[in-house]
Amino acid sequence: MPEFFNVLPPAEARLLLFEHMQHVLPAETLAVTDCLGRVTSAAIHAPHALPTFRRSTMDGYAVRAADTYGASGSLPAFLRVIGEVPMGAAAQVVLSPGDAAIVHTGGMIPATADAVVQIELTQTVGGETAVLPYEIEVFKSVAVGQNIVQVGEDVGVNAAILPAGHLLRPQDLGGLLAVGIMQVSVARRPRVAVLATGDEVIHPSRPAGPGQIRDINSYTIAGQVMRAGGIPLIGDIIPDDFAALERAALAALSSADMLVMSAGSSVSVRDMTVEVIERLGAPGVLLHGVATRPGKPTIVGVVDNKPVLGLPGNPVSAMVQFDMFGTPAIYRLQGMIQPPKSGQVWARLSQNIASESGREDYVPARLEEGEDGFTAVPVFGKSNLIYTLVNADGLIKIPLNKAGLLADEFVEVRLF
Amino acid sequence: MPEFFNVLPPAEARLLLFEHMQHVLPAETLAVTDCLGRVTSAAIHAPHALPTFRRSTMDGYAVRAADTYGASGSLPAFLRVIGEVPMGAAAQVVLSPGDAAIVHTGGMIPATADAVVQIELTQTVGGETAVLPYEIEVFKSVAVGQNIVQVGEDVGVNAAILPAGHLLRPQDLGGLLAVGIMQVSVARRPRVAVLATGDEVIHPSRPAGPGQIRDINSYTIAGQVMRAGGIPLIGDIIPDDFAALERAALAALSSADMLVMSAGSSVSVRDMTVEVIERLGAPGVLLHGVATRPGKPTIVGVVDNKPVLGLPGNPVSAMVQFDMFGTPAIYRLQGMIQPPKSGQVWARLSQNIASESGREDYVPARLEEGEDGFTAVPVFGKSNLIYTLVNADGLIKIPLNKAGLLADEFVEVRLF
Repeated sequence: MPEFFNVLPPAEARLLLFEHMQHVLPAETLAVTDCLGRVTSAAIHAPHALPTFRRSTMDGYAVRAADTYGASGSLPAFLRVIGEVPMGAAAQVVLSPGDAAIVHTGGMIPATADAVVQIELTQTVGGETAVLPYEIEVFKSVAVGQNIVQVGEDVGVNAAILPAGHLLRPQDLGGLLAVGIMQVSVARRPRVAVLATGDEVIHPSRPAGPGQIRDINSYTIAGQVMRAGGIPLIGDIIPDDFAALERAALAALSSADMLVMSAGSSVSVRDMTVEVIERLGAPGVLLHGVATRPGKPTIVGVVDNKPVLGLPGNPVSAMVQFDMFGTPAIYRLQGMIQPPKSGQVWARLSQNIASESGREDYVPARLEEGEDGFTAVPVFGKSNLIYTLVNADGLIKIPLNKAGLLADEFVEVRLF
Repeated sequence: MPEFFNVLPPAEARLLLFEHMQHVLPAETLAVTDCLGRVTSAAIHAPHALPTFRRSTMDGYAVRAADTYGASGSLPAFLRVIGEVPMGAAAQVVLSPGDAAIVHTGGMIPATADAVVQIELTQTVGGETAVLPYEIEVFKSVAVGQNIVQVGEDVGVNAAILPAGHLLRPQDLGGLLAVGIMQVSVARRPRVAVLATGDEVIHPSRPAGPGQIRDINSYTIAGQVMRAGGIPLIGDIIPDDFAALERAALAALSSADMLVMSAGSSVSVRDMTVEVIERLGAPGVLLHGVATRPGKPTIVGVVDNKPVLGLPGNPVSAMVQFDMFGTPAIYRLQGMIQPPKSGQVWARLSQNIASESGREDYVPARLEEGEDGFTAVPVFGKSNLIYTLVNADGLIKIPLNKAGLLADEFVEVRLF
């Protein structure tokens, strides 16, 4: 395993992970209304055109466009209003030359009409007490098709409306319901087992004695899992004991689609995590070490198509590394190629930041909103403390090939 | 009501709404682990310092810094390793001058030590088969406090750790659990009644006859409500009948904290919605018309501290206007002053776009990611079709005071 001692750049490390997890979780069929945030497992086509009938985009009169040609304020066209199209019903009125019919926004256009004149461009002859039939003046000509949405203009019959691997947003649910699709096939939600390990780690409800710290990584990671659409399964806290860790990891992996171990930070504990992952199955550990700060000693593996991560114990590293590998893996398990863009913003940097080339650095920052965008203001302090992240909006990414960033540079910020 | 016929700019309209809804929903106390995405209802203080003991940030040796002064590769300091600090337990080893103790990352620092030498800067005298006590060479001096996290360095006792009105993210839950806070007081989730109205609107499961369209706004709005932390309550579809709408609105509002009516687009239907809101209670309609496209004929009101919105019937307008008033109102009901920044990105514009000054325009766009940020590529086509939003990542905002935007300009995009 030559990769074992390599420290890979994050993008390459992620590709290596993805090469070994070709598997997408099985699909399940659900009501569209329950699918917000779920990922389609197959392409979806429109069973019929949308709209299914020609609709008016204005309140006004359905007309034959030719009857309005040459109409102007000084020389209006005179039309006879012979009927009204009721909302929600077929437009049964038949227009002869010189006829018009009242139509409301969203109403159906009569078969014999080909345009709509908006009401503001007309005037009733003889005042507002009009009883059908009555005459109107039209002060502007309309073209054929004007103020009309045509059949299929929103989406054509059989059109590919959503690809497979698409994350369903409110408008996507609306688009499906609009063509009468009530159920959709989506990838099952990934079940992600989360194990905290360490002799010093205790359940958060317990009083922390000397040398003890409360488990928080299980819960921050669980929150990240939920945000990516997964179901977190938090296990018991495992002591630094090889047999106990192996037993717990095996059990957790057997009932989950992915395993995350918050693995402690000392070298001996990390080595133990590596060995346990190797014994879980093939291909095992893919790499040990990512060229980032924080989070260099991250372990990335795959066992039977299931991603297995060993994250550093410090909470900031654990969150950054989960964002880097765990979140994309959860989306990938659902069949998505690219995670959504919502956790990522770009901002102007408020001041210079030094860094080390050859490493992707993450610096906590607050975002301040101005007239022409966000400014990222670094929040300095030890980067391994949880309250650094509590007091920040996100982390500025300093790319691998840069020895720092300059004030006013346009930088990527990962929201946390 | 002078505002009635005014068309306000969106920011002013939002302020007017907020002036009339001072009410924050009552709090409830929940397990911290169930509070992702909830909003704190009171400021929270740290019951104790974090960490509670001095911790090592390295694998190495706890030492008295003075014993290493002047140490270098050519002139190492010699120290005697007399014990090991076990993880998760008190550091009971007592160092005399010239002594050191093995300590792991995250381990407790003995009271008699004041620095940690990382293991890579030491060498065991006589090889690796060391049995306590044994001698080491130290090749670099360390300063007092080096490689140690001090008591309270993450957060001090009684420090204000989270303000009221704070949206809880994964790291916030972690920060609370780290100091043993297991329960937190958060604002109740807002219940948002959603009513679709219109003689032409049918339930999405029904076949659409001539002139009929399926209700999709109830479901796109419900998705937006959920994203903002609210609970959507979708009602029956109401025909264009004053008494029926008034009855339904009254019933919906009585069991909800906010009411949204997807009100149809014809003038007569909008007027009916305005009248119904006026009769629901005080202060009633605050404004009718917002200087935006799409979505100008939006109705914004408040009844007994509850926001009431009348949205245009076209689905794109409805979503844009809900994003502009509904989403901020839901956060406001939970006590948040500013909605989170995650739905908002800035991008470079790919081409010129024309607009009309005095109106805030929204243009559908795809985001393309490059080396130094996002590019927003406008998706043209009628902006009132749902598949315009399905095929876009979001909407480019053209500010009120601009008559268009130029290629390469840095623009705000609202993700949808």
